[in-house]
Amino acid sequence: MPNCLRPALTDTSPMAITPYLQLEQEFRRLHALRSAAGMLRWDAATMMPAGSVELRGEQLAVLETESHAVLAAPKIARLLDRAAANLPSMDEWQQANLRRMRREYEHAIAVPHALISRLAKTTATAEHCWRDARAQSNFALFAPHLEEVLKLVRDRAHLLGQALNLSPYDALADEFSPGLTTAQIDRIFNPLSQRLPELIQQAIAAQAQLTVLPINAKIANSKQRALAVELMKALGFSFEHGRLDESDHPFTGGVPGDVRITTRFMPQDVLSGLMAVIHETGHARYEQGLPTAWRAQPAGSNAGMAVHESMSLLLEMVIGRGQSFLQYLQPLLVKQLGVSGPEWQSDNLYRVLNQVQRSLIRIDADELTYPVHIMLRYELERQLLDGELAVKDLPEAWNQGMASRLGVTPSNDAEGCLQDIHWSLGAFGYFPSYAVGAMIAAQWLESLRAEVAGLDEQIARGEFTELFAWLNENIYSSAARLTGSELVKQVTGRDISAQPWLRYAESKYLA
Amino acid sequence: MPNCLRPALTDTSPMAITPYLQLEQEFRRLHALRSAAGMLRWDAATMMPAGSVELRGEQLAVLETESHAVLAAPKIARLLDRAAANLPSMDEWQQANLRRMRREYEHAIAVPHALISRLAKTTATAEHCWRDARAQSNFALFAPHLEEVLKLVRDRAHLLGQALNLSPYDALADEFSPGLTTAQIDRIFNPLSQRLPELIQQAIAAQAQLTVLPINAKIANSKQRALAVELMKALGFSFEHGRLDESDHPFTGGVPGDVRITTRFMPQDVLSGLMAVIHETGHARYEQGLPTAWRAQPAGSNAGMAVHESMSLLLEMVIGRGQSFLQYLQPLLVKQLGVSGPEWQSDNLYRVLNQVQRSLIRIDADELTYPVHIMLRYELERQLLDGELAVKDLPEAWNQGMASRLGVTPSNDAEGCLQDIHWSLGAFGYFPSYAVGAMIAAQWLESLRAEVAGLDEQIARGEFTELFAWLNENIYSSAARLTGSELVKQVTGRDISAQPWLRYAESKYLA
Repeated sequence: MPNCLRPALTDTSPMAITPYLQLEQEFRRLHALRSAAGMLRWDAATMMPAGSVELRGEQLAVLETESHAVLAAPKIARLLDRAAANLPSMDEWQQANLRRMRREYEHAIAVPHALISRLAKTTATAEHCWRDARAQSNFALFAPHLEEVLKLVRDRAHLLGQALNLSPYDALADEFSPGLTTAQIDRIFNPLSQRLPELIQQAIAAQAQLTVLPINAKIANSKQRALAVELMKALGFSFEHGRLDESDHPFTGGVPGDVRITTRFMPQDVLSGLMAVIHETGHARYEQGLPTAWRAQPAGSNAGMAVHESMSLLLEMVIGRGQSFLQYLQPLLVKQLGVSGPEWQSDNLYRVLNQVQRSLIRIDADELTYPVHIMLRYELERQLLDGELAVKDLPEAWNQGMASRLGVTPSNDAEGCLQDIHWSLGAFGYFPSYAVGAMIAAQWLESLRAEVAGLDEQIARGEFTELFAWLNENIYSSAARLTGSELVKQVTGRDISAQPWLRYAESKYLA
Repeated sequence: MPNCLRPALTDTSPMAITPYLQLEQEFRRLHALRSAAGMLRWDAATMMPAGSVELRGEQLAVLETESHAVLAAPKIARLLDRAAANLPSMDEWQQANLRRMRREYEHAIAVPHALISRLAKTTATAEHCWRDARAQSNFALFAPHLEEVLKLVRDRAHLLGQALNLSPYDALADEFSPGLTTAQIDRIFNPLSQRLPELIQQAIAAQAQLTVLPINAKIANSKQRALAVELMKALGFSFEHGRLDESDHPFTGGVPGDVRITTRFMPQDVLSGLMAVIHETGHARYEQGLPTAWRAQPAGSNAGMAVHESMSLLLEMVIGRGQSFLQYLQPLLVKQLGVSGPEWQSDNLYRVLNQVQRSLIRIDADELTYPVHIMLRYELERQLLDGELAVKDLPEAWNQGMASRLGVTPSNDAEGCLQDIHWSLGAFGYFPSYAVGAMIAAQWLESLRAEVAGLDEQIARGEFTELFAWLNENIYSSAARLTGSELVKQVTGRDISAQPWLRYAESKYLA
């Protein structure tokens, strides 16, 4: 907030500027261009009229090209080399920042301007047509666009992989979660895929013993929204630096100083909209908690998508759907929504919110079957990228994968391979971060329990101060100084693995 | 709208590209950067949380700097010279485009990057503090920011004036309405200031004979909005390429392919919100009607702010508050708002909407006293720019000017010199365009009446096709090929003057 009583002087005095500080200036320019694009993407999903799709695609393509030009300029290479010579005189943050700058630069020069710009235009159209195709459950409407996107993504992955000495898929995954590779993902996913089928079966059998009263009160959107806002405030979301809106697919957008989250309110399913809000609030608190001073610099960014997802899953799945939180939430539901009856008791809410089901839609999946959805996508997107699987064969491969892995078969593509937006955006290599994020969340939980006494009692009272103080000290404030893997190791003392999550799942579902 | 069934090929074949076509490419980049900034400005006024003011200021400053860098590049000068050599081979549109390109380039190189960037940052803060100051009616809160803005605007006007061989004020006015000078403005305003005091007095005396029933039903915002949307559709606003939202001060933002208008709904004053919607729809139809093929090029832009304002005033003041339109509107009000009673008869609506009053707020002023508000601002902003009037003396000069020109004195600065946003944004030289626009609107009306038979009867039936066909043929489709003055001369056969408006005003208010 500017201080209106004391305007900032607009004169800046000239001063000696080191190569490192010149780099900071260039990255501030880059950040402003990217954050403009971020706001336009948020607008496209929440506010933009349908007729502006192409125009917005052109705007975003130009912003991408300009960003790319700033980052890939020969000047940056010279400054990086000159700054590296001064490394001993720099503090730890500056050193981390310089490492991140070099990584961004290497990603940028690996791919030509023209390809970046074509990808932006192509994905803008593909996203729009994916929306149409999903609404009509018509894969043929999306297939040619996915082909185009895939062709460009493949070129990009190939070039990135060459530059970074990684396989094409690993090069893409590295962009979303720096340092994450298929070797590491496989090490995490293998024990999961071994244990999960049995665990799901056992959990379903255990839950069959319990009575679950369905919740199907019709609640007006305005009431759902008021409650969502109250919860977001209780969870420390700053409405001074963010908003809540509605979109088809909930997401967290905007920039760290102006975080825009969205949800989807459905009159007959109040819990779904609320849980999405808690999920996105987990993302948003992370973004709002990143150190302000480093906001426009690479080291001040988040530690990658897997850690990001661990923040949302910790808040939604582990805490938000946990018994303690539901004790806090239950009277709020009764008061704000005017509901009553035995189905609104916290024990029943807990059962409703943690029901394990073999189902078709990833974003509605429970936490036990969720990794199965991810492992299927992980397999298919690697095959698509390799050319092992043709786009035209995707629906069949998807349906067979769902049948063999989870025992359910989509009756149409809208509830099959058209359900997710990611591929339309060219976001291949993103999916694993969701399940890796779930694993990391369980790892945070073990550390939290060890270090915050009375955590559950606090949550049941609606007190979240110590929880967020821990997250701030251990995760938010570290920003992108470390990679996700390094951060997990530093905070929990161990590498990312599926074991804490399996312990968490067994104690929750088989106790 | 992209055609989802037939994706555009992303490969572009290489071709010989002339200097002129290279310029078109550079101006497309420029347009995309500017339209991103346009969307961010719309967002700032409608959606943005309060805490993001500074951050948004930084984003806009970077976008301005990048735009400036594209436009002021030495490459542009070389291309302009080389393209000029090919002038005979170019069509009329291309020639006009090249002229506009050169004009933009000359504006751009006249002012250094650093000043542009400082102005963007300073005005972002000043605008925010102006909002605070107005809310608290505390001029002291705004004064230091206005000083800062004025200092920068003065530097800019001086540099622009030198480059364009214009006085500093004329250089600023030229940006908003190309070709408009103080000499021309004075020629238009002089007969006005001579005739208006008596005309206002006569109109007030004539209206004193009439009974006006006040309208003060409380109408919920949602109902007002529904009616506004229906009216916008009737007036041909495309919701496929635009939106309606709410903001403190109604405005038209966005870009030609995605026009975002806003209004202010007040529960006890339904007519005010609706008239603002009609006003902004006048602006919006102009933007939506600009030729799509030229959208990203200078010649495809509008013909300047005076012509823009003539489009909104024609639709709001001349048509929207006219007897024919009110005959069409009256049953809609009754049906959509569920109102009844003699105050809702169209004759009474006409009297309410055309009441002449010596009042304090420009945007609420009737059309007779409106030019007086403008002439005061025109006088004061020239004095501020010259340094003849100090910022600290502005409130007193304002209040004295209102008293001597209109016979009313503000009781505080919120209804005095703090009422308008323009100066906080550094928009000096803009105000005259409002009143010049009113004059032009009356000139269009005379041509419309001569060329569209039965115009009033059509309007009374809610038929606007011929009206907009005329506007499209004569004004929208011409875009910025001509300056405002040239366009008026071409369409009406005469220079811009106050005479048609004085004829219109006398026949409306003294008949």
